[in-house]
Amino acid sequence: MGEIFARIKQPAVIGEILAGIILGPFVFGLINPANPEAFGIYKVLAEIGVIILLFTIGLQTRVDEIIKVGGTSLVVATLGVILPFFFGYLYTLTTEHSTVEAMFIGAAMVATSVGITARVLSDLGILDSRVAKVILGAAIIDDILGLLVLAVVTGMGKGTISYVKIALITLEAAGFVAFIVIIGKRLVIRVAPRLNFIKSRNSAFILAIVFCLGLSAVASYIDLAAIVGAFMAGMVLAELNIEFNFSLKFESLYDFLVPFFFVVMGSQVDLSVFTHFNLIGSALILTVFAILGKLIGCGLGAFRLGWKDASLIGVGMVPRGEVGMIVASLGLGMGVISTNLYSIVIFMVIVTTLLTPPVLAKMISSMRRKKMEEESEELPVDL
Amino acid sequence: MGEIFARIKQPAVIGEILAGIILGPFVFGLINPANPEAFGIYKVLAEIGVIILLFTIGLQTRVDEIIKVGGTSLVVATLGVILPFFFGYLYTLTTEHSTVEAMFIGAAMVATSVGITARVLSDLGILDSRVAKVILGAAIIDDILGLLVLAVVTGMGKGTISYVKIALITLEAAGFVAFIVIIGKRLVIRVAPRLNFIKSRNSAFILAIVFCLGLSAVASYIDLAAIVGAFMAGMVLAELNIEFNFSLKFESLYDFLVPFFFVVMGSQVDLSVFTHFNLIGSALILTVFAILGKLIGCGLGAFRLGWKDASLIGVGMVPRGEVGMIVASLGLGMGVISTNLYSIVIFMVIVTTLLTPPVLAKMISSMRRKKMEEESEELPVDL
Repeated sequence: MGEIFARIKQPAVIGEILAGIILGPFVFGLINPANPEAFGIYKVLAEIGVIILLFTIGLQTRVDEIIKVGGTSLVVATLGVILPFFFGYLYTLTTEHSTVEAMFIGAAMVATSVGITARVLSDLGILDSRVAKVILGAAIIDDILGLLVLAVVTGMGKGTISYVKIALITLEAAGFVAFIVIIGKRLVIRVAPRLNFIKSRNSAFILAIVFCLGLSAVASYIDLAAIVGAFMAGMVLAELNIEFNFSLKFESLYDFLVPFFFVVMGSQVDLSVFTHFNLIGSALILTVFAILGKLIGCGLGAFRLGWKDASLIGVGMVPRGEVGMIVASLGLGMGVISTNLYSIVIFMVIVTTLLTPPVLAKMISSMRRKKMEEESEELPVDL
Repeated sequence: MGEIFARIKQPAVIGEILAGIILGPFVFGLINPANPEAFGIYKVLAEIGVIILLFTIGLQTRVDEIIKVGGTSLVVATLGVILPFFFGYLYTLTTEHSTVEAMFIGAAMVATSVGITARVLSDLGILDSRVAKVILGAAIIDDILGLLVLAVVTGMGKGTISYVKIALITLEAAGFVAFIVIIGKRLVIRVAPRLNFIKSRNSAFILAIVFCLGLSAVASYIDLAAIVGAFMAGMVLAELNIEFNFSLKFESLYDFLVPFFFVVMGSQVDLSVFTHFNLIGSALILTVFAILGKLIGCGLGAFRLGWKDASLIGVGMVPRGEVGMIVASLGLGMGVISTNLYSIVIFMVIVTTLLTPPVLAKMISSMRRKKMEEESEELPVDL
């Protein structure tokens, strides 16, 4: 399916998600999240797949380039967290739900799932662009902010908030990112020359895998997303990419494992939420708020890059992934949000996830076309 | 650990198995077969790892070369099944056990675990040798014969043997192998030129993965080992290896996934069987029979290749792997063999598995040294 979509000049990722829906419980039932034992096999491969995806993207991203757009990323991430949160919070409050419920829905609106967008940008070959850098930088900050929001709302859900603990969690996460980005890069550049002593042809590759999985594990241990660790591992090793040919080495792992992530994502699309007709109205409204929240928040944050880049960044930050679902299911598990609200969040996650790749691809290709037309119009003048 | 062993000029696989023992329940307990949920993650990667291992080995093996040594392989496999079976059967009978018990122990003595030997031959860079071809050919036939033996003994265990069913199982397995080896190769050579039409740079690699996993699934479906399917998939694609650069593409998958197989194998080494002092005597005797059975059986089968090659083939066929354990646990589950006999089989499997890599490596390196000495002695004459 990925191959077919690549041939009709669409991002392969759309084909892979569709393949997941087709293999999933609502069509063939070959990959079924309701069967944890068999599904676990796919989840393992999917999780390693998304780690490899973000690591590979990190390999093509230099730390200093991310730091250069760091200010913009920070504003994009911050506004992109605040707006969706308040949209979700206020909408839920106005529909006769409690404050705690509203807080949870707000929190579920926050986290951008960067895997989708990163893959689309990679499929379209524009990971080099300023837009991609801002989105990737914002995704890291977004994840730290999401952690903070989650700590606050689960604290409220349990009825006890420890501000000291929340501050510690945030410091830990921010400290980890800062340490890797600032110290990690220098360390690697120092240690790298010694790597030449390693005889076996693939030692550098093996060490890169260990580093990638190691940082993913550390990130996951301090409650950041594992993919944030993987992305940073890639970024740190980007300096050595040409010398050790990492991109080529990781290509096969990418081709084999990354599709599992999107297939599993597709298989988890719970089509039954679309049949709760009484909920469709509220679900659609919340989804519109979820989209507008990121579009306006992140778009405003990136406005000084011009409206074209800002709109791409806004759209690129729209997809919510499993984090939104996890927040909602936490609330469900704690008994503070209803099954209806839970289904609405699932609906929002599915729609934002499925909508982004085609819209983003369309925007980018139409911008490219326009640019080419402008250039060809200018040609006579240049000649 | 693999890296360290490669540096001290030992097969990396020994280091990886040791790493598994160290990570396993008897040292650090980080990989624990007794915790099925966490262990499942490693098992998924291990299973794909051994599939990639045998596929990669298949890629370096041409069908006609295997067919050329087919007669020798057939004799090696057949004698290597008959002797261990009767050694196990007769020894168990003489120690006051029932006929059914003796049949099960005989069956557990039969199946060679070719992964270990193939990896050692690959680590030492002699997959090209006649010895390697005979062992790989014999491993396929061994698996079909093992299937036959297993069908007979489980039939006896249940008290009902359907000879028609056994004949069908065997025909199905042999037919599958023959079909792939004879028809598959031709089909691939026909279809291959059309593959050039595929645009995306990695389509051939993706199709190779699909073919490899597909044949593994079919093999597994008809009760053959999945790795037999993977090996045959590799063999069929060997013709296209240079054109599509499969070996290089699969190298990263190999480096990442194959170690999981041997680490998991190491983690499953149940050191506690070595503490059943009352069983150690019988366990040692059965292990000696297990080794002699393959050594004499397979060695005799390959005798016309000269005693050096014959002894390498005999040693190469010694390791029993999970198949032996599966047969024993089937018998345990059916209540036809005792826990003591089960532990003895586990002991035999562990010892044959751990003993083979160092012995094989030692034999090959001493043969190489001798050959070099002979050549240097001859040098003055040649000059």
